[in-house]
Amino acid sequence: MQPLNVAIIGLGTVGTGVARILTEQPERIAQRAGRPIRITHAVVRDLNKPRDFDLPDAQLTNDVHAVIKDDQVDVIVQLIGGLEPAREIMLAALEAGKNVVTANKALLCEHGDELFSRARQSGRSIAFEAAVAGGIPIITAIGQSMTANQITRIEAILNGTSNFILTEMLGKSRSYAEVLVEAQQLGYAEADPTMDVDGTDAAQKLVILAQLAFGTRIRLDQFTRIGINTLELADLTYADELGYMVKLLAVVKLVEGQLEMHVQPTLVRKERPIAKVDGAFNMIALEGDVVGKTWYSGPGAGQMPTASAVVADLIDTVTGRASLNFPQLDLWGERDAIPVQPADEVTNRYYLRFNVEDRPHVFADIADILGRNGISLASIIQHEAPELDSIEPNADPVVPLVVMTHRTTAGQLRSAEQALDQLATLRSPCISMPVAD
Amino acid sequence: MQPLNVAIIGLGTVGTGVARILTEQPERIAQRAGRPIRITHAVVRDLNKPRDFDLPDAQLTNDVHAVIKDDQVDVIVQLIGGLEPAREIMLAALEAGKNVVTANKALLCEHGDELFSRARQSGRSIAFEAAVAGGIPIITAIGQSMTANQITRIEAILNGTSNFILTEMLGKSRSYAEVLVEAQQLGYAEADPTMDVDGTDAAQKLVILAQLAFGTRIRLDQFTRIGINTLELADLTYADELGYMVKLLAVVKLVEGQLEMHVQPTLVRKERPIAKVDGAFNMIALEGDVVGKTWYSGPGAGQMPTASAVVADLIDTVTGRASLNFPQLDLWGERDAIPVQPADEVTNRYYLRFNVEDRPHVFADIADILGRNGISLASIIQHEAPELDSIEPNADPVVPLVVMTHRTTAGQLRSAEQALDQLATLRSPCISMPVAD
Repeated sequence: MQPLNVAIIGLGTVGTGVARILTEQPERIAQRAGRPIRITHAVVRDLNKPRDFDLPDAQLTNDVHAVIKDDQVDVIVQLIGGLEPAREIMLAALEAGKNVVTANKALLCEHGDELFSRARQSGRSIAFEAAVAGGIPIITAIGQSMTANQITRIEAILNGTSNFILTEMLGKSRSYAEVLVEAQQLGYAEADPTMDVDGTDAAQKLVILAQLAFGTRIRLDQFTRIGINTLELADLTYADELGYMVKLLAVVKLVEGQLEMHVQPTLVRKERPIAKVDGAFNMIALEGDVVGKTWYSGPGAGQMPTASAVVADLIDTVTGRASLNFPQLDLWGERDAIPVQPADEVTNRYYLRFNVEDRPHVFADIADILGRNGISLASIIQHEAPELDSIEPNADPVVPLVVMTHRTTAGQLRSAEQALDQLATLRSPCISMPVAD
Repeated sequence: MQPLNVAIIGLGTVGTGVARILTEQPERIAQRAGRPIRITHAVVRDLNKPRDFDLPDAQLTNDVHAVIKDDQVDVIVQLIGGLEPAREIMLAALEAGKNVVTANKALLCEHGDELFSRARQSGRSIAFEAAVAGGIPIITAIGQSMTANQITRIEAILNGTSNFILTEMLGKSRSYAEVLVEAQQLGYAEADPTMDVDGTDAAQKLVILAQLAFGTRIRLDQFTRIGINTLELADLTYADELGYMVKLLAVVKLVEGQLEMHVQPTLVRKERPIAKVDGAFNMIALEGDVVGKTWYSGPGAGQMPTASAVVADLIDTVTGRASLNFPQLDLWGERDAIPVQPADEVTNRYYLRFNVEDRPHVFADIADILGRNGISLASIIQHEAPELDSIEPNADPVVPLVVMTHRTTAGQLRSAEQALDQLATLRSPCISMPVAD
């Protein structure tokens, strides 16, 4: 049977993984796709860069537009990261009548609207399983396996780097800064880890999942996004004592006809499956109104897990499944979207930690400010000062005070925090984290 | 658009759930299927039985063959359990040119060969996501999301009843018999729970997964199948002390070009995800040569989770995805199958417990028999007699002796057990369970 011709744009880590699978397993791929898949072109920026993988049949080129216009090419596998030129390449490929497979989450998050609209106009499909949670087939699960359901809740660990760092901090009693260096040495964190540790990466993936599950167009500035890069070991330890793990939790759920949505370090009770995910793995807890709760976990990033998802998408594109799915998913389309709850109105229980001077009336002042902001307390734990909070010799003793609140809005909490910051007896700003329901 | 006409055969628990979804969510289903889905017939055995759900448009009938021959009917949703008449109905439906959706695992396990061959001859599809692990989309994961991979290992909890009973036994320190009664009262176990607790249900599902992942036709008598119905609380407790949970583990994995396959109570290290699954949930750990390890968990049975999978299959059938998948999956087809390793040659580490008289030389006798059968010991734990082993007053004291072996074959173990049973100092047959790698 006539082979299908594929051009890979970008031979970075994932692109090389995809090329390796297609080249090393031609029979397996042909059997599952119903025809052979051949890489005809690989587009790279620097033709002279040494590569650890040889592509015998492919033409190595830096002329992306010649490849897109080539009538021999059936499918474009677009694996350049970032927004430009990835966006412009995707649009050109769709206009040239090519189906596209991509792993670029940032691009779909920012420009999904334009890209999917262009794909619909061209009658072409965009497949993107690899864009969210790498080797975990969560796009297929939501878009195809849960079609009997209204999805009601997604709670997920979507950034493996952050989860690795949190696991190591608590497990080895080490600071964020120490563990980050270790994670970089082990290859679990990039040289520039900003997008991973500040919550942006998880938030971009959550935007895509929310669009898929709820049909809502959401911008990153519409919901709370806090990373793990300001966390202190002390809070992981206190949470542990209280029966919780701290996870960088990406949440979107239906609450009274609105979407509650946020990405932030969150206390999760240790018994829950998502609290038990250690190291660089991802997990998605997916709840539907018919099925109830289901969980999916595995490697959320890395060369071969991500390449596995790209190749599955490519096979779906070849067999025609992708083009059947595409109109039904109606991504960034005309569905009746569910509105996003304003970030300040989101309610949660909260963990709060104060570093206070060990003097009379300090707690009364704090309780008064919380009470005036409508925040009531569920429990209070006064700890002796741990060694972590190294204090100056002869200084006033500083003790940590940990409080768990009843449900309150993010807005009330913010207003209380502003008032608390004025208290002279507080030695550092209040630390706050929500507690998962 | 013209509605798709569906006949449901069997209005039991799952059938009623399917009818409820299709009737209560017509817009959701129409949007995702691309056209309305209408139940035109519901076939029941007893027309006069009172039902808690009303099907306004459907004709209630007990004439299954009239329904199958009805040209108005597009898809048959076959939800009768057991082998006959389910088999005969499926064959007739396929011959009449209908696509079929089913949840009947026993039927696919026993007659998959004949049914899928008939479907191929008729150019029709059989969709069966609901047959394995209910609300967990494991059929789609293996058949569609992991197409870049050779699956190398499946380890799964596939029977929720058994897992519920194991969780309760250890958690509440109660015997198998006590917990079984509780499980029946709570609806977690059937009035006749035989197939659940003797491992048959899990084994039938494993046969289907092995066929899907490896292309191998396997009969139930080709692999070891042991249920939880002979387990004693004492062994769950000793395993717990040793750092393991006992799970009814269904395993199929590639070992040197053969399939190692078995369903049996197995010791799993507590840190592993599958050890952390409590209660009536299922989990499948799926390993592929490209993606590495992934995990899927959720409700493996129950009315609405199973109905969710049936309706997703029905939507896949309507959109045409099922008929695209069907030839590619090549189930019970002509693939080069991977042979099954003979049950006696399967190697595992083992947990062994002996109830021995507390006298000199008892252990030497046991060690001698194990050694002569090529079984070497990794560790030995001699416990004091627990209250569980209630012994007669004034009888010789009986003490439990727990041993962990190095790897040995099931055949060697069986031969050792036969010799051990002749020892006068052993008060009851040796208890043995494999330890997961």
